[in-house]
Amino acid sequence: MDTGYVHGYAEPEARRLGDQADTLAELLHAGTAYPAGSRVLEAGCGVGAQTVHLVARSPGAHLTAVDVSAASLAQARKRARTVEFRQADLFDLDGEYDHVFVCFVLEHLPEPEKALAHLRTLLRPGGTITVIEGDHGSAFHHPRSEYAQAAIDCLVRLQADAGGDALIGRRLYPLLTGAGFDGVSVEPRTVYADASRPGLVTGFTRDTFTAMVEGVGETAVARGLATADGWARGVADLHRTGAGDGTFHYTFFKATGRKS
Amino acid sequence: MDTGYVHGYAEPEARRLGDQADTLAELLHAGTAYPAGSRVLEAGCGVGAQTVHLVARSPGAHLTAVDVSAASLAQARKRARTVEFRQADLFDLDGEYDHVFVCFVLEHLPEPEKALAHLRTLLRPGGTITVIEGDHGSAFHHPRSEYAQAAIDCLVRLQADAGGDALIGRRLYPLLTGAGFDGVSVEPRTVYADASRPGLVTGFTRDTFTAMVEGVGETAVARGLATADGWARGVADLHRTGAGDGTFHYTFFKATGRKS
Repeated sequence: MDTGYVHGYAEPEARRLGDQADTLAELLHAGTAYPAGSRVLEAGCGVGAQTVHLVARSPGAHLTAVDVSAASLAQARKRARTVEFRQADLFDLDGEYDHVFVCFVLEHLPEPEKALAHLRTLLRPGGTITVIEGDHGSAFHHPRSEYAQAAIDCLVRLQADAGGDALIGRRLYPLLTGAGFDGVSVEPRTVYADASRPGLVTGFTRDTFTAMVEGVGETAVARGLATADGWARGVADLHRTGAGDGTFHYTFFKATGRKS
Repeated sequence: MDTGYVHGYAEPEARRLGDQADTLAELLHAGTAYPAGSRVLEAGCGVGAQTVHLVARSPGAHLTAVDVSAASLAQARKRARTVEFRQADLFDLDGEYDHVFVCFVLEHLPEPEKALAHLRTLLRPGGTITVIEGDHGSAFHHPRSEYAQAAIDCLVRLQADAGGDALIGRRLYPLLTGAGFDGVSVEPRTVYADASRPGLVTGFTRDTFTAMVEGVGETAVARGLATADGWARGVADLHRTGAGDGTFHYTFFKATGRKS
């Protein structure tokens, strides 16, 4: 099965997504709580990394979580037992919901605006959508390193080759307005890590971002986008930004919109 | 007089700094208020763009604002009449203060850590420093444009050629700890502008950032860092990010530290 998911489906990847969600939960989920009884759709739940936080923050909502991958859903089911899981392609979804939640999904889709427009058809009038995406163009660090930057650029390129866009965060405003949503509001949610924030250095710089870059190394080298030496140095330099005098910056974008 | 100040000292530049300060005042100054009677030094006050906000937020503090440029001080005096202004080089300063405030200054200095170490000598034990700087590596936008990026890169290069560092924001943590400050804490303060935030599109994307890039155009072309056509297109593309579907992102860094 080739779903074009650049990060792959192996076990370490599932662990990475779990670590990422725990470290970033407060940053990403703050402000998102759905009323008891409301019908919430998580489109593209993957292994359930965000699903558990949706459940924790909206215990009374009725959550339906959908993903195209049966293997991911099997893991998600173990994580969140009270959720209704369903295997389906985003474009095949039907039903009516009060709220839709989409996190780290649009970045992998060739037609994100079309996906948003379809999700809009699933909302009742007055219903809302919440979208969270990263933007790898927001990644910068100290010490600076052309090798680390080249490795990040490789990840962006691989995601583009797979039909996605690792720089999609900056596009959420035009994507949501273009898909017909009203009252669109986008907020940057920034991760900044230095030695005074050891949890973020470990949880984000090392175990989330650097691990994500490391995860595509074999592919990048196999496709001739990087040399083995250059790649190794890039990853080492990313790790180096987690040392005592290092810093790391990354911006996620959280968008909300309404179906009038 | 060549002080190495890349942005120059002409009138439009003073207006730009004023616009910037007004739009960004809340973002940058939130959390900074000095007790009545405390002795506060603003090192490198320039035309007083930040000075007026320091006065407004700490009306009872005794503020001394210092700059190396007599012309800038003349303008600053008109803006903030209750402040004690003094013309001096940062490294020649003496006296004792409870707090030091430094904003958009270190980015222009060849030895920022040495400057911070000197400022530390001016603090009483237990005194604090607050430092605010930008980082042009945090600038990204939609639509993407290699011409706009090249123009931004020119600005970074010109500032480096003048002995400064337009990418200094990411370095505040190591700079302050290296200069001997304790309890150093750095926060990103992010500007994100899209059509739902027209004040920021005008006040930041257009009148602050794009104006700053435009301001070095003649120099960039004269030094052969850009062609006239390429530069014009880069500036046009930066303006384009302020259109209806455009977005713009920039991160300032605000750091605090203590002299034990």
